[in-house]
This record gives sequence, C-alpha cells and structure tokens, in this order.
Amino acid sequence: MQRNTWTTAILLWFGLWGCSIPQNPSTIDGPVSMFTQTIPQDIQDKMSVQELAWSNGDVETFMSAAYAPSDSLLFIGSRGLTLGFEKVLSNYRDNYPTGDAMGELTFKNMFWKPLGSEHGLLVGSWHLMRGEGFEDLEGHYSLIWQFIEADGEWQIVADHSS
Amino acid sequence: MQRNTWTTAILLWFGLWGCSIPQNPSTIDGPVSMFTQTIPQDIQDKMSVQELAWSNGDVETFMSAAYAPSDSLLFIGSRGLTLGFEKVLSNYRDNYPTGDAMGELTFKNMFWKPLGSEHGLLVGSWHLMRGEGFEDLEGHYSLIWQFIEADGEWQIVADHSS
Repeated sequence: MQRNTWTTAILLWFGLWGCSIPQNPSTIDGPVSMFTQTIPQDIQDKMSVQELAWSNGDVETFMSAAYAPSDSLLFIGSRGLTLGFEKVLSNYRDNYPTGDAMGELTFKNMFWKPLGSEHGLLVGSWHLMRGEGFEDLEGHYSLIWQFIEADGEWQIVADHSS
Repeated sequence: MQRNTWTTAILLWFGLWGCSIPQNPSTIDGPVSMFTQTIPQDIQDKMSVQELAWSNGDVETFMSAAYAPSDSLLFIGSRGLTLGFEKVLSNYRDNYPTGDAMGELTFKNMFWKPLGSEHGLLVGSWHLMRGEGFEDLEGHYSLIWQFIEADGEWQIVADHSS
C-alpha cells in the first residue's frame, strides 16, 4: 500500500469516526448519561434522505422515506393535530408551496430512547434555512418510530414538532 | 331494595357509563377508527389529579402525580428541551410563579396508542384559563407513559407540549 493510499485510508477512518461521535447536547439541562443508546442506522439513513429530499423541494420523497403510509399516522405541528399520511402530505404542500418556502432542512438528533423492542422515541432539533422573503424556522421534534418486522425497517408512526 | 335506592342505583350507573364515553375527536382530520383503545384507568385518574392540583396552585403534586421521578424525564415545551424531574419542576415554578399565572387547567384526551406492552402514547389538548392580566393558553400534548410493573402503575417518561 502506497503512502497516499494509507493517508487516504487514515483520513477516511477518522472521517467516519468523526461522523459517529454523538452530537453535543450542550443545549440540554440535566444529566444525559441515560441517553447513550445508538440510533438505529436505518433511522439515521432515512433522516438523511429526508433532509436531502426536503432541500430539493421534494416533499413526496421527504414523507415516503420515513413516515408510515397509514391512515393512523399522527402529526402534531403548529396547526394542531392531523391524522393520516395523505392529510399530512397535503398540509406540507399547503404550508410549503415552493422550493423557496421549503428552504434547506437540517436535523440534529439528540436522544434515542427505545420503548420496548419495536418502538423508540427520537428527540432532536430541526432548522429550516430559507431564502429572501421567508424567515428561517427552527424547533424540536419527538418522533415515535416503529420497527416493521416484515420489512425489516423503521417507520415514523407519530411526529410532534414544535 | 326500596324504589329510591333503585332510582339512585340506576342514575349512578348511567352517570358512570356517561363518564366512560370517549371524548368526541371532532376536531381531528381523518379517520379515527384505529384509535379506539381505552386509556388505562390509572392514567385517567392521574390526569384528573393533575388538573385539580394545577388549578389549586400545587405544582409539586401536579408533577409527582404523574411524571417519572427520574433524571431521564424528558420534556419539550415552548422553551425547548429539558431533562430531569427536578429541572422540569423548577421550570414550571419559574414560568408559573403564582396561582393567577397558573390558572385553571383542563385536559382533553384524544388518542391512546399502545407501544408494545409497557409503553403508550397519549395525545390530547390542554387549556389554561387564567385571570385578569394573564392570557389564556392552549395547545396539544404527546405524553409517553411507561408501565412500572413493580409498582403496578403508569408514569410519564416523556412530554412534548406545544
């Protein structure tokens, strides 16, 4: 292995290791030692797809990448309570009709709390950086994920964002 | 059994039956048939204690009646994220320093969604009716309850209110 290859490998290793360092929960009051469980990789991947889709103005992919395609999907946002995948999608379209209104989305996951073997709560903060004419927005989310054994993957079944 | 006793018994029966009728989720968009599971009685009782305690200006009882006395209690409100029972209590004291600021609290439970056998999500709306000098407040809550088998009771382990 040549010197350049080694350098690349070492940089890559440190890069990946850097990605796996838990984000600093410095904005949190109180001890955090009980929240050290790792977020399932499938969930981290899906949220990365969501960030990218949203920032590309693709609200359909943003939703289908992570939310349960179910009439019982539960969403609580600034407008109150909404039930059902299609209705949540419709609300997103109404509230963010253009790419400028959508802006660039960033998630910052803070805590993952398993709830039994098939559910988990993911808490974090979201930030929307938008262009001229639109104010930036930010807040926190509580996502309840359910593991769908038949598909071997996780889906959001309830989302409270504020 | 005398006639009056029978009348009392029948009225009492209808009264109790009336109390168990699910609240009308008329404010919700979408089908609600998948949310017909009964909220555990222990949870309903604790939230009634909470309403009364809050409305009496007793924030300590409001908290100890339902919230897990734990450093990992998670709370998301208008101020963002807070961890730990004592810190949540302290924030409540700071934000609602007097009985007038606290006002009268009403919960309206809407949906109970079991998450495995030991957890459940309770979604509903809250309303705070306050006196002169304080605006009324209202919003929605997502409470994650955990069943503590050793104590045979439920406790709130995460609360997102907005």
